[in-house]
Amino acid sequence: MRAVVIAAHGGAENLEVREVARPVAVGDRVRVRVRAAALNRADLLQRRGLYPAPAGAPQDVPGLEFAGVVEQLGEEARAWREGDRVFGIAAGGAQGEYVVAAESALARVPENLSWEEAAAVPEAFITAHDALFTQGGLTVGERVGVHAVGSGVGLAGLQLARAAGAQTFGTARTQAKLERAREFGLDEGVVVADDPKAFADAVRGRTDGAGVNLILDLVGASYLAANLDALSYRGRLVFVGTLAGSVAQLDLRVVMSKRLRLAGTILRARSGEEKARAVRLFAAHVVPLLARGAVRAVVDSVFDLADVRAAHERMEANENFGKIVLRVTGGG
Amino acid sequence: MRAVVIAAHGGAENLEVREVARPVAVGDRVRVRVRAAALNRADLLQRRGLYPAPAGAPQDVPGLEFAGVVEQLGEEARAWREGDRVFGIAAGGAQGEYVVAAESALARVPENLSWEEAAAVPEAFITAHDALFTQGGLTVGERVGVHAVGSGVGLAGLQLARAAGAQTFGTARTQAKLERAREFGLDEGVVVADDPKAFADAVRGRTDGAGVNLILDLVGASYLAANLDALSYRGRLVFVGTLAGSVAQLDLRVVMSKRLRLAGTILRARSGEEKARAVRLFAAHVVPLLARGAVRAVVDSVFDLADVRAAHERMEANENFGKIVLRVTGGG
Repeated sequence: MRAVVIAAHGGAENLEVREVARPVAVGDRVRVRVRAAALNRADLLQRRGLYPAPAGAPQDVPGLEFAGVVEQLGEEARAWREGDRVFGIAAGGAQGEYVVAAESALARVPENLSWEEAAAVPEAFITAHDALFTQGGLTVGERVGVHAVGSGVGLAGLQLARAAGAQTFGTARTQAKLERAREFGLDEGVVVADDPKAFADAVRGRTDGAGVNLILDLVGASYLAANLDALSYRGRLVFVGTLAGSVAQLDLRVVMSKRLRLAGTILRARSGEEKARAVRLFAAHVVPLLARGAVRAVVDSVFDLADVRAAHERMEANENFGKIVLRVTGGG
Repeated sequence: MRAVVIAAHGGAENLEVREVARPVAVGDRVRVRVRAAALNRADLLQRRGLYPAPAGAPQDVPGLEFAGVVEQLGEEARAWREGDRVFGIAAGGAQGEYVVAAESALARVPENLSWEEAAAVPEAFITAHDALFTQGGLTVGERVGVHAVGSGVGLAGLQLARAAGAQTFGTARTQAKLERAREFGLDEGVVVADDPKAFADAVRGRTDGAGVNLILDLVGASYLAANLDALSYRGRLVFVGTLAGSVAQLDLRVVMSKRLRLAGTILRARSGEEKARAVRLFAAHVVPLLARGAVRAVVDSVFDLADVRAAHERMEANENFGKIVLRVTGGG
């Protein structure tokens, strides 16, 4: 089968599309013929050699999420049948014509989604749902801050927060991204160039000083102090990424006096059982929203598998708004 | 009535025992004739002018916890009758012959406790119960780390963790304090002088590298990195004090990859409603343990009210093991 292969660690020029052995599903796994697969920042890190695939996953074929058709079942797989339209997550290997995944890592694709849209969903929406609800305990009527609102996770978080009855505050590096984010549920946008304090000031100014109850942070260290400042009493800060560094000063007095909670989460590092739980909650709580159009996949751009280098370059340049998708195989 | 008064901010020589007006309970408040009241580090900070009493509380009479007899009821108070033996918390003013407190801030003293023992209970046990269970979600079979195990909160935390079926790891600055902590449920002690890393190393060494599930931290900044290192996957770190500084480097990568949760809590800053909830849980879950001797008040020393300066000096010198108690009024 054809798949993206990381031939050597470094720049995008090390990506190649090659013939590799087709994987076989055993046990409770299923093989999916991949129609489309989306890119993640983790793919860039893996390409540079900074984020190796976990044991048991394909080491040189990247790809953490996909949409496609169930094509072969392991002998213990019970949840799916050949021909089912599914999307889901894998620890790697999704950017090829076939991927093998645990049956519990899949959900059924709603009929109203194209393959490209479906591929743009799993990582962003599973991560955002888990961070906002399972980790962050979001409740109706709360105020939520989302950094990097133009990213896949940011747009998923915005939409889910709005669907759950929250007021949303978001940051991006350009006014243009904030404007586009409005149609996905952004209530209050703040351009944050190099001064994260602008976020805290804006939040305080627009909430009578009360702050936001929950922040979904993909940015990391450089925003930590501003995040603590922007949080309300009993606020929660959930880290899902560290784009701008990972080591920051933490003032425990603020954490204690405001009774804050900080939590970190990475989807890929979880056990199969925990991923299964996150996917089950996604299937139960997010897929119905997708099916009725209350939240939408945001596809920035679609590249053919052969153009994977250009796809990486677009993500690296931070030009995307929403997800970058690779079209892998054709068919109905 | 006689009460401890902070005559000026500074050293213990500014503490005086003076005649002050006896407070009157109105609304849902009750006046308690105080038999004994315990000291807290917050009293030292308040004396130095670093921790003013909240609005509505007596400004110059310290004292956050007490045991005594209900003596006068506000017109809306329903939970208590004159003559009830109670212990509880107040936002200040407990180190005098009478204190006024919300009726929801009191619990009934078990018969097996002396007044001095009862006064040594509320702050330490409410704080430790809230931190371990309400904030930290402690579950049977987990491993718990407690810093400053010789402190009031430390000894309460140790005992509650053991009573709930946890294995306990604790730190103190001397071997002597660790030895004494063994009879209160300490399984594994670590002397931590100026190197908090010793705690993380010991925890890893004694848990096959797995770490502790929950840490109750009264120390703060200087322990943060070691705490993150000592925590297990999905571990929880609850801050209840910052004896050794409040600003520290936080590595978000560790928080994310281990999926840690950090939470801060101060009892005094909470709303009345939230304090009421913490006291209700204390009455339901901790008082029965006290009544049957499964956990015990740890009284380091008892001073007469007139000797409050000496009591402060003992706490300031870090000599105490358990709580320092002031005997306020006599009687049966």
